[in-house]
Amino acid sequence: MRARSAGGAQRRAPAALLPGAPRGAMGSAHCAALPDVRAAAARLRGRVRRTPVVASGGLSRLAGRRLLFKCELFQKTGSFKIRGALNAVRSLVEEAQRAGAEPPRAVVTHSSGNHGQALACAAQAEGIPAYVVVPRTAPRCKKAAIQAYGATLVPCEPSDESRAETAARVVEETGGVMVHPNQEPAVIAGQGTIALEVLEQVPEVNALVVPVGGGGMIAGIAVAVKALRPDVKVFAAEPCNADDCYQSKLRGELTPNLHPPDTIADAVKTSIGANTWPIIRDLVDDVLTVSEQEIKQATRLVWERMKLLIEPTAGVGVAAVLSERFQAVSRDVHNVCVVLCGGNADLSSLTWLTDLPGKAE
Amino acid sequence: MRARSAGGAQRRAPAALLPGAPRGAMGSAHCAALPDVRAAAARLRGRVRRTPVVASGGLSRLAGRRLLFKCELFQKTGSFKIRGALNAVRSLVEEAQRAGAEPPRAVVTHSSGNHGQALACAAQAEGIPAYVVVPRTAPRCKKAAIQAYGATLVPCEPSDESRAETAARVVEETGGVMVHPNQEPAVIAGQGTIALEVLEQVPEVNALVVPVGGGGMIAGIAVAVKALRPDVKVFAAEPCNADDCYQSKLRGELTPNLHPPDTIADAVKTSIGANTWPIIRDLVDDVLTVSEQEIKQATRLVWERMKLLIEPTAGVGVAAVLSERFQAVSRDVHNVCVVLCGGNADLSSLTWLTDLPGKAE
Repeated sequence: MRARSAGGAQRRAPAALLPGAPRGAMGSAHCAALPDVRAAAARLRGRVRRTPVVASGGLSRLAGRRLLFKCELFQKTGSFKIRGALNAVRSLVEEAQRAGAEPPRAVVTHSSGNHGQALACAAQAEGIPAYVVVPRTAPRCKKAAIQAYGATLVPCEPSDESRAETAARVVEETGGVMVHPNQEPAVIAGQGTIALEVLEQVPEVNALVVPVGGGGMIAGIAVAVKALRPDVKVFAAEPCNADDCYQSKLRGELTPNLHPPDTIADAVKTSIGANTWPIIRDLVDDVLTVSEQEIKQATRLVWERMKLLIEPTAGVGVAAVLSERFQAVSRDVHNVCVVLCGGNADLSSLTWLTDLPGKAE
Repeated sequence: MRARSAGGAQRRAPAALLPGAPRGAMGSAHCAALPDVRAAAARLRGRVRRTPVVASGGLSRLAGRRLLFKCELFQKTGSFKIRGALNAVRSLVEEAQRAGAEPPRAVVTHSSGNHGQALACAAQAEGIPAYVVVPRTAPRCKKAAIQAYGATLVPCEPSDESRAETAARVVEETGGVMVHPNQEPAVIAGQGTIALEVLEQVPEVNALVVPVGGGGMIAGIAVAVKALRPDVKVFAAEPCNADDCYQSKLRGELTPNLHPPDTIADAVKTSIGANTWPIIRDLVDDVLTVSEQEIKQATRLVWERMKLLIEPTAGVGVAAVLSERFQAVSRDVHNVCVVLCGGNADLSSLTWLTDLPGKAE
C-alpha cells in the first residue's frame, strides 16, 4: 500500500517545536486545552460508553507492530460524535443553570451524518428541541436515524452555502444555539475524552492514529495526549481525495479542499477549520493519506478478520497503519492504537465491498 | 415474527422429566457429562478466547426482555468450533502421552465450513497433519481459509455418501483419526465450555438460546447448564427449512432432514445425530424454528444496531428471541443469552442483505 506523509519520515518533533513554524490567526492559543477535556470527561461520565480497546493478532502481523483498536463503533449512536455533541449540550445547560437562566430553547446544526444523529440524541437526553439541517440529497436512512431521536429535519440544497444559510435562518427563527460539528470548542473537548480513555486502557501506547475530516476528533485527542504524554505520537489519517489536512500541514497554512471531495469515507469529506487547524498545526505529528482502494481493502479486512462492522471512514485509519509509508515510522512506535471512529455503514449499498477483487490482503 | 415451538407454549419441564418421554437407543446415558466439560475447560484454558458477553438496549427493547450476547464470532477461527476441535485434538495427544505412544499421525474430518477451519487450526497448534474432506462445490474462500491453517484439502462429490466414504478412505490411507464435527464426544464437551463461561459472566441468566445444526454446541451447553443450574432454560433455534431437531422433539425420535435443506444459515444444514439426540431429547427445553426472512432480518439488525458482523447462522438465535413465539415464554425468563456462534459471513455474496426490503425492523 502507498501513502503520503506531510511531515516527511525524518521529522519527529511536533510542528510547534520547529523554529519558524507558521502561526494562524489565533496564534498559539488553542480553543481547547486539557482542563476542558477533563471537564468533558466528568460531564460525560455514565452518559456515554467507555468503549473497549481490542487487539488483533492478524492485523498486527500484517502491520509488523502491535495494533490496538479503540472501538467507537460501539459508542452510543454508532460513532464517537455523541461525546462532543453531548458535552456541548450539557455545557449549555450548565451555563444556563449557573446564570439562573432557562436552558437553551433549541440546538441547531448542519450534518447529514453522525453529528446530526449525535446532536439529536444529546438534545433528546436533555429534553431540548434539536433542528438538523440536511441536504435534500442525503440518504433516507440517515434522515430516518436523525428523526428517530426526535429531531426536526430542515432540508437545504446540497451546497456549503445553503447549509450555512439555512442553519443561520433556523437559529434566528428558533432562538436556538448553533453547535458546529467540529469547530465548536466544547465539541473538540468532548472528542478528546477518547484520548483520556486510551491512555488509561493502554498506558503502553506509543501512537494514536485518527481519521481527520473537520478535525474535531484529532484536535481534542492531540490536546489531551500532548499535555499528558508528549512522548505519544498523534497521526492523522486522511483520504488522498480529501487531503486538506495534508495540504495544510505541507504549506503551513489552512488549505481547505477546493472541490467537494469524492471519497467512500463520507464522514471526512469536510475540511479542517479555523479552530482545529492551529491545534493540528502545532500538535499533530504527521498526516498520512491513503487511496480509495486502500480504504476499501482495510475496511473489508476489519470486517473479515475482526468481525467489526466499521464504516469506511474508520477504515481510513486502518489503511494508514497498513500502508507502506507507515513502515518508515520509527520501530520505537510499537503499540499503535487506531480509533475505529464509527460503524454507521450504509448496508443498502455494498457494491464497493462485493466488487473488491479477491480477498482483502 | 412467527416461530414454531416443538414443545408447545405450556410445557415448562424438560422432556426427560415428563412421564413416558421416549428413549433413544442409547437410553439415558449421555456421551458427555459435566466432568467432561470441566476437563475440556482446563484443556482449553489460555488456548482459546474467553469471549465477551455484551448487552444491547435496542434489541432488548424489541424483545421485551434483557438480551445478552455471547460473542463467539470473536473466537479464534471466527466461530465456537475451535473449542470442540481443539479439545478433541488435545485429548488425543494426552491419551497418547499417557499410553507412552506417539501422537496421532493425522486428524481427518469432512466439513466445508467452520469445523474444517477449526480442526485445521487445532491440528496446526499441536503439530499434527490435518486432512479436511471438502465438496468440490464449496466456495473458494472457505477452502482457502482451511488451507491457510496448513491442512490438506481432499475433494469429494457434494453428497453425504461421498463425504463419508472419502473421509473413511483418508483415515485408512493416513492412519489418522476421524474427528466428527458434532457427534464426537470430545467435540461436544468442548462446545460445552461456552456454558461454563456464560454462567460465570452472567450468573443472573435465565435462559440460553443456541442455534442447532448437528447439535454439538447445544448438547455440550445443555449438559453443563442442567448439571449446574437446572433452573436455567436451554432453547434450540433452528431454520424452518432445516427443522430436524424440531421434528425429532415433536415425534420423540431422531428424525433427520429428508432432503438437503435450503437455508441461508449454512452452518446448521446438517442434522442432529445419534450422540446429540439423546441429550437434546432429555435436556433441551424447547426448539424454536424461524423463517429465512426472519433470519435475514435478525442478522441485518445485529449488523446495523450492534455493529457485530455475525454470520446468518448466528442470526437464527437472534430471530428466535425476537419472534412472536418467544413472547409466550414465561416472563420469569428475563435475562436471555443468545450465543452468536460465528462471524464467517461470505462477504462476496451479500445480495440477501442488500435485497432486504427497507430497514431491519
